[in-house]
Amino acid sequence: MLGVCYYPEHWDESRWRTDARRMRELGISFVRIGEFAWSRLEPSRGTFTFEWLDRAIDVLHGAGLKVVLGTPTATPPKWLVDECPDIIPYDEQGRPRGFGSRRHYTFSSETWWKESARIVEIVAKRYGEHSGIVGWQTDNEYGCHDTTLSWGPEDLKSFKRWLRLRYQSTDQLNEAWGSVFWSMELTSFDDVALPNLTVTEPNPATRLDFWRFHSDQVAAYDKMQCEIIRKHSPGRWITHNFMGFVSDFDHFKVGDNLDLASWDSYPIGFVEKFPFTEDERNRWAATSHPDIAPYHHDLYRAVGKGRFWVMEQQPGPVNWAPWNPVPKPGMVRLWTWEALAHGADVVSYFRWRQAPFAQEQMHAGLNLPGLDEWSPGGKEAMQVSEELATLGELPETRQAPVALVFDYQSYWSTMIQPQGKDFRYEELCFRWYEALRHLGLNVDFVRPGASLEGYPLVVVPCMTEVTEAARAELEKAEGVVVIGTRTGSRDRNFRIPENLPPGPLGALSGNRVIQVSSMRPGLADGVSGAVSGHAIRWREYLETSASVLATFDNGDPALTEKGNVLYLACWPDAGLLGQVMELSTRRAGIPTMRVPDFIRIRRRGALVFAFNYGAESWPLPEGATPLLGNAFVGPQEVAVWRA
Amino acid sequence: MLGVCYYPEHWDESRWRTDARRMRELGISFVRIGEFAWSRLEPSRGTFTFEWLDRAIDVLHGAGLKVVLGTPTATPPKWLVDECPDIIPYDEQGRPRGFGSRRHYTFSSETWWKESARIVEIVAKRYGEHSGIVGWQTDNEYGCHDTTLSWGPEDLKSFKRWLRLRYQSTDQLNEAWGSVFWSMELTSFDDVALPNLTVTEPNPATRLDFWRFHSDQVAAYDKMQCEIIRKHSPGRWITHNFMGFVSDFDHFKVGDNLDLASWDSYPIGFVEKFPFTEDERNRWAATSHPDIAPYHHDLYRAVGKGRFWVMEQQPGPVNWAPWNPVPKPGMVRLWTWEALAHGADVVSYFRWRQAPFAQEQMHAGLNLPGLDEWSPGGKEAMQVSEELATLGELPETRQAPVALVFDYQSYWSTMIQPQGKDFRYEELCFRWYEALRHLGLNVDFVRPGASLEGYPLVVVPCMTEVTEAARAELEKAEGVVVIGTRTGSRDRNFRIPENLPPGPLGALSGNRVIQVSSMRPGLADGVSGAVSGHAIRWREYLETSASVLATFDNGDPALTEKGNVLYLACWPDAGLLGQVMELSTRRAGIPTMRVPDFIRIRRRGALVFAFNYGAESWPLPEGATPLLGNAFVGPQEVAVWRA
Amino acid sequence: MLGVCYYPEHWDESRWRTDARRMRELGISFVRIGEFAWSRLEPSRGTFTFEWLDRAIDVLHGAGLKVVLGTPTATPPKWLVDECPDIIPYDEQGRPRGFGSRRHYTFSSETWWKESARIVEIVAKRYGEHSGIVGWQTDNEYGCHDTTLSWGPEDLKSFKRWLRLRYQSTDQLNEAWGSVFWSMELTSFDDVALPNLTVTEPNPATRLDFWRFHSDQVAAYDKMQCEIIRKHSPGRWITHNFMGFVSDFDHFKVGDNLDLASWDSYPIGFVEKFPFTEDERNRWAATSHPDIAPYHHDLYRAVGKGRFWVMEQQPGPVNWAPWNPVPKPGMVRLWTWEALAHGADVVSYFRWRQAPFAQEQMHAGLNLPGLDEWSPGGKEAMQVSEELATLGELPETRQAPVALVFDYQSYWSTMIQPQGKDFRYEELCFRWYEALRHLGLNVDFVRPGASLEGYPLVVVPCMTEVTEAARAELEKAEGVVVIGTRTGSRDRNFRIPENLPPGPLGALSGNRVIQVSSMRPGLADGVSGAVSGHAIRWREYLETSASVLATFDNGDPALTEKGNVLYLACWPDAGLLGQVMELSTRRAGIPTMRVPDFIRIRRRGALVFAFNYGAESWPLPEGATPLLGNAFVGPQEVAVWRA
Ligand SMILES: [Zn+2]
Ligand SMILES: [Zn+2]
Ligand SMILES: [Zn+2]
Repeated sequence: MLGVCYYPEHWDESRWRTDARRMRELGISFVRIGEFAWSRLEPSRGTFTFEWLDRAIDVLHGAGLKVVLGTPTATPPKWLVDECPDIIPYDEQGRPRGFGSRRHYTFSSETWWKESARIVEIVAKRYGEHSGIVGWQTDNEYGCHDTTLSWGPEDLKSFKRWLRLRYQSTDQLNEAWGSVFWSMELTSFDDVALPNLTVTEPNPATRLDFWRFHSDQVAAYDKMQCEIIRKHSPGRWITHNFMGFVSDFDHFKVGDNLDLASWDSYPIGFVEKFPFTEDERNRWAATSHPDIAPYHHDLYRAVGKGRFWVMEQQPGPVNWAPWNPVPKPGMVRLWTWEALAHGADVVSYFRWRQAPFAQEQMHAGLNLPGLDEWSPGGKEAMQVSEELATLGELPETRQAPVALVFDYQSYWSTMIQPQGKDFRYEELCFRWYEALRHLGLNVDFVRPGASLEGYPLVVVPCMTEVTEAARAELEKAEGVVVIGTRTGSRDRNFRIPENLPPGPLGALSGNRVIQVSSMRPGLADGVSGAVSGHAIRWREYLETSASVLATFDNGDPALTEKGNVLYLACWPDAGLLGQVMELSTRRAGIPTMRVPDFIRIRRRGALVFAFNYGAESWPLPEGATPLLGNAFVGPQEVAVWRA
Repeated sequence: MLGVCYYPEHWDESRWRTDARRMRELGISFVRIGEFAWSRLEPSRGTFTFEWLDRAIDVLHGAGLKVVLGTPTATPPKWLVDECPDIIPYDEQGRPRGFGSRRHYTFSSETWWKESARIVEIVAKRYGEHSGIVGWQTDNEYGCHDTTLSWGPEDLKSFKRWLRLRYQSTDQLNEAWGSVFWSMELTSFDDVALPNLTVTEPNPATRLDFWRFHSDQVAAYDKMQCEIIRKHSPGRWITHNFMGFVSDFDHFKVGDNLDLASWDSYPIGFVEKFPFTEDERNRWAATSHPDIAPYHHDLYRAVGKGRFWVMEQQPGPVNWAPWNPVPKPGMVRLWTWEALAHGADVVSYFRWRQAPFAQEQMHAGLNLPGLDEWSPGGKEAMQVSEELATLGELPETRQAPVALVFDYQSYWSTMIQPQGKDFRYEELCFRWYEALRHLGLNVDFVRPGASLEGYPLVVVPCMTEVTEAARAELEKAEGVVVIGTRTGSRDRNFRIPENLPPGPLGALSGNRVIQVSSMRPGLADGVSGAVSGHAIRWREYLETSASVLATFDNGDPALTEKGNVLYLACWPDAGLLGQVMELSTRRAGIPTMRVPDFIRIRRRGALVFAFNYGAESWPLPEGATPLLGNAFVGPQEVAVWRA
Repeated sequence: MLGVCYYPEHWDESRWRTDARRMRELGISFVRIGEFAWSRLEPSRGTFTFEWLDRAIDVLHGAGLKVVLGTPTATPPKWLVDECPDIIPYDEQGRPRGFGSRRHYTFSSETWWKESARIVEIVAKRYGEHSGIVGWQTDNEYGCHDTTLSWGPEDLKSFKRWLRLRYQSTDQLNEAWGSVFWSMELTSFDDVALPNLTVTEPNPATRLDFWRFHSDQVAAYDKMQCEIIRKHSPGRWITHNFMGFVSDFDHFKVGDNLDLASWDSYPIGFVEKFPFTEDERNRWAATSHPDIAPYHHDLYRAVGKGRFWVMEQQPGPVNWAPWNPVPKPGMVRLWTWEALAHGADVVSYFRWRQAPFAQEQMHAGLNLPGLDEWSPGGKEAMQVSEELATLGELPETRQAPVALVFDYQSYWSTMIQPQGKDFRYEELCFRWYEALRHLGLNVDFVRPGASLEGYPLVVVPCMTEVTEAARAELEKAEGVVVIGTRTGSRDRNFRIPENLPPGPLGALSGNRVIQVSSMRPGLADGVSGAVSGHAIRWREYLETSASVLATFDNGDPALTEKGNVLYLACWPDAGLLGQVMELSTRRAGIPTMRVPDFIRIRRRGALVFAFNYGAESWPLPEGATPLLGNAFVGPQEVAVWRA
């Protein structure tokens, strides 16, 4: 189903009725509103002006639209900031981050929690049982614009509190952090200092705790909102709209609060954000890379425990990337179908109409700036809407053959201690995902420690800390397990494990890591054997009791196998990675279907979808009868058939 | 005529007489002094030590030199900064910018206005009627070193005042800015915050007003100085020495205060400042690009309403660029002649003698460091001086066949909202200018809204806001009008016009812009038809009722024509741009003369000048008899003939 | 002999005895301890807990190890920072640099001097006459992490004091600095401002004085520590462990306080720090460039007046460079032998055992993380230890045939005023050194003004200020003297000399520099004559009375000769530099032995050492009988023979 993000407060009330009617004409079922409207709901403390929103909801609801209401906490108004300056976040350079855009609050501020609870309660009470309201969105894009971490006085205060709870005594903290090093020992929790602006790098254990602390706060803050909403709005679901490639907090923990996950899909903007090569960026500039959106669909399906929306779908060029090209014709439709193929319940476009004013005036909408005229993207949405009607209800998404274990903490840990400048956790996971998708496979993201039952293949690109739960699940796993580099390289206190990496997986993998080498971009180390290619960026020196499937140029083990467990002791280049995935799927007995690098396949129930991101046509597999599209899937085209 | 910048305070008084005599020997008529001498004129508050300046002026005047006196406001002394810390500017990072160099004041400080008025009045009273003084320079290089904008408490105070005047009520301000977006609404002018250090980008409308506010302040501050000088120095003219490629304030508005404009010509330093390609930078490193100085000459001729000087001419290597090569032999002479060809009344070298001390000790002078010996540049100046005597009085500059409409606000607007990272207004104007100069044409810069009468060709590379006056003049224009991209894309409140871009020029051009695409450096879009080449960086999607002269690869209109109005819907690469200019001049019936890319032509009255920036000789056009130079213009040579 | 850096406070006391025993097994004689242990020695003010250190020293001493004790001033504990916030340094951006790593103090703080003296005295008194203690290390790596300069209130206070002493009156200061320029004149020493955060560049003379001031402070601070130690620890020597490529203070002046110099040798980390080309970085990533460590050995031999140690030798991958590859097998052994060949008394590895916690957990040790197992580097150290025993006592180091005059102030001066962005003093010296080493020569570093007696060849790559002493020694020099660019270009007040550069060497060289040109990377100027190649980066325009041995393309002198003095008027590319060095050694009558660029030779007494950094074998010169190694020196191999 389709949805749209709408800002009634941006348009003269006289236009609302037409807007609602045209939404229905386009086939839209859901409309998200309200998430930035605080200054219109409470223009000064205690003065409430909800009447316009009452009317707006009535108009939308009256037109047959289901309303998703956002809490307005992403944009505290000026009067609140002036009254409570302690809500202001600080950047890593120690500067307060001012009013004048959005997300200008720190999760550490107690004042902010009180103010948030107050406004959420007021909104939830007023609309909680409104028949037009079917669901809620908490806040907006937690963490966007680097707003998870903050380095101000409120943050230090809360961090101390968090540490006191975690460690009970400074002795335990000193022991955990290894504070004896460089005389960093603390004698009181009051001694704790912010881990920024130090002379040289601060203790990585401190930084990891600082990151965990902030991540915990996001989840707790979200939970606070959810609890208030649940109290006042029975029977409605709650979601949050996560941003792409924002991994500063543990989305799974926020997901625990939610009924379903949602995310904001800007496939083209992300091409400039993700560390692609320049060649890739040029190639995919106007279509996006074919795994960018799917990677997130699969991630957020996991965060939503199987249920997710795209809450904001790019309907044309956006405004916030270094370059913002117009998507190729067909891409808005393709992205919509792709989200659905990956199991999205709803794809909701951002935004209904391009605003001719303020920060996002260059962000396309389904309508031209300020007008009641479909934009090119609006016309594509219309097409999807018609096709959806033809195709009928989509089947349920089934468990994929492959589980990719994704771990936010590994992102933090390797950001804190890259050891090689280009060791980027998200890039590693993305490349493993891409290699699996080249084989035509569905992939499920799995949270560390979650069950791996029923997966013929489990891949763990990197998991720095292997918790007891994670170890247990990996040992129980009956499928082939492929473990990547740096896994088990740190214990919970960011210390190297006593038995050396991979620590808790030493016995399972048969390996012990003696040394690691990070390699600058000009360097590579050849790998040959059952698989071949090159190690780049990172290489480990193993002692092994496992079988050696492939070796580095100097004869050291590169890929080992012990029982069902493969261990890859490097960051593989594309060639090596592809071969490792092929070997793993063969060993796992998973049927694969190698596709060109511009084609992607995705199964939803019995339906198979194909998506063409390239410039050439692609013939459907023999025997496939398209329910949508043609036997030759043209550039930017979609095909659906029954498997 | 020639001039020189001189600092008597830098040299022992015993040397002044020799200096003055040698200036005359070199053929210098004008000498600029005094603009950094505050600490020598008022070493502590109220203690004045003008006697040395009296004597210096007498010596110079006595030797037959005409003196241009600068007000010393670019360098407030330490005692003043200590006494009035509120004059200090703040950078965009929120840090005060300290004492120890120059331009350490903000235009927003009321204290600073008072102190400036005080010292200007004292200087103007003392020397206003001195027979040696023929003219005045206000301050020095407004805006240099990013000193137009400042982000401190005084700036916020003044900005609020400016906004109150502009908008009268916060309702009007909120409406203009679209403050409803992201709950940015203000309920009092006291709510206004500085548009820096926000979490994500601040409102572009706010930023544009902040820029306009500062630009207005520069003009008003300059006007204050001019009024004081005029009161006390009847019959003398006033100028200001503008810097090259500093466009943070509207030079035309400052020009309104002045009798003539002047600018500081550092052709080689600017090669590293302007966004040339690396190839261009290597090629022009020791000569400068052949359009750098001319572009500014033509701009400042417009700012000076027809009258301009080069107040500072680089006479050798300078000290402030990342690299500072020695100019090729002949270039100091060439630049001097080129300024004169473009209509300069006077070319004044900076500086008389290289100073062996302080910040500019690596900046060449006409004399070697600390010595009474001509530098290589000094010898070239001498040659020009002799040639000038031979050639006699130069004729008046006539109106050019081409008007280039140049708009400072478009620079600010596209800096604030580039939308494509490499959309640089000045670069666009420069490239259009360069293409016209390749056709051997004189070009006039014209201020938006000024008369276009008598111009067979008018080019508007980009004019984001088309004011009523600008629209009226463009509609009245009888010549061919070529309009470039993003023109009319914003109204006065930085909103997208209701009829979509080009807004007020929609009817005139027959176009409506539906979408825009910004393209990363690896991308381009082919254009073919009456002109061909590629769109790079920026492309618009037009609906048009005009004739389509050329299309993009997908068949969309790229160049349209309606009556005398051409509209180019992209940033053209060099090939496409050249063809558009050729087509336009043909349509305008302007005779052109295509020259190699290292040759430039300029007409002043009946005289034609040719300048050779390259490594090969260039033969004069048939029938040209050189008054200066030869039939073959050698590398770094100049030729003059009568047309 | 071999040593090791050990942190008894990092390990359970039960392990000390085993550690000591295994040190002896490996052949270690010296162990450095204590330099970061303040929080363990004085956990709160006045509470001392030295007992553990007493026991640790006893265990080590008891096992036959000689102990070097470090003063713990590099890591003031948190209680001290909280109590005395005025010890905190400020960065150039004006921000305090917080607690949480190391070196968080400014040399300008009087409080800090008092606290340092207090703790040094306590430690020196307690252990000064302990029979296990053979020597002392002051502090740790002065200047590391940009900690020489600081821009805080304490720094300004001390700088004013220093200036008052140097200049006596502001008149003299104003005259020296040329403060008349831009009205920077001061009327009181209280007027002095920090030379950071100015609007445009501050006065270079001020910056140089600020740098000298800080350099002087480092030396004086070190002297203060040395005097206290000498008082309480008779008969023990004192050293400091200098860092590589940290030139912010004058190491020679600190060396004046010391009995011997030592330095911390991280050959691989430095590959990313030094401005090598990308090709060089790739080529030498896992071996280091063959001149990086030798360059420092030769420098610190000079700083130590003939005596030096390597206090910290990298024994495997480190943690602090952008990439940290595992060294090629054999390199730890090679580096150790190379240090000895250059005259090191002791090579001490950092560290005994890799720590599984805190900032340096990725820094290799001689033992695996937390374990009693040799790391690969530990095994190589063992090999050296055995070879050392076989080879017996090494002969004395003799004076080299070449002196390279190295001048810290020239580094500061060219950093302050590069004039060409890539004019890097250290790179220039390194390249000259490299060219000499390609000829198989031993090189001595010499401090400006020190005797040059007995050197057939003296090279001065660049010496911006030529002091009276330096001039006198150069004039007395009987060998060939090769003078490079920018020499004598500034007087003691950072002014251009009255007779123009090379100032005091004008008569000696026969030259006068009229202009200088800095050239961007794309540019070069051909040189031909007795030597040929290209000038890059920097070129001077000379007037000369000397013989011209080679000219630039335009015929100007590039290399001149007057008596025994050659003057090279440019930054030479590798080809030109090699030829200049060959010509100079020929003229000096020094026998050379050209080696491939991956081979280096070094003589110590009658022994000749060869080191192979490459991938191919190299045959020993005819007649050489290896005492160590083979007739063909393999990759990463070492050979020793008697000359
Ligand atoms: Zn969004
Ligand atoms: Zn200037
Ligand atoms: Zn160290």
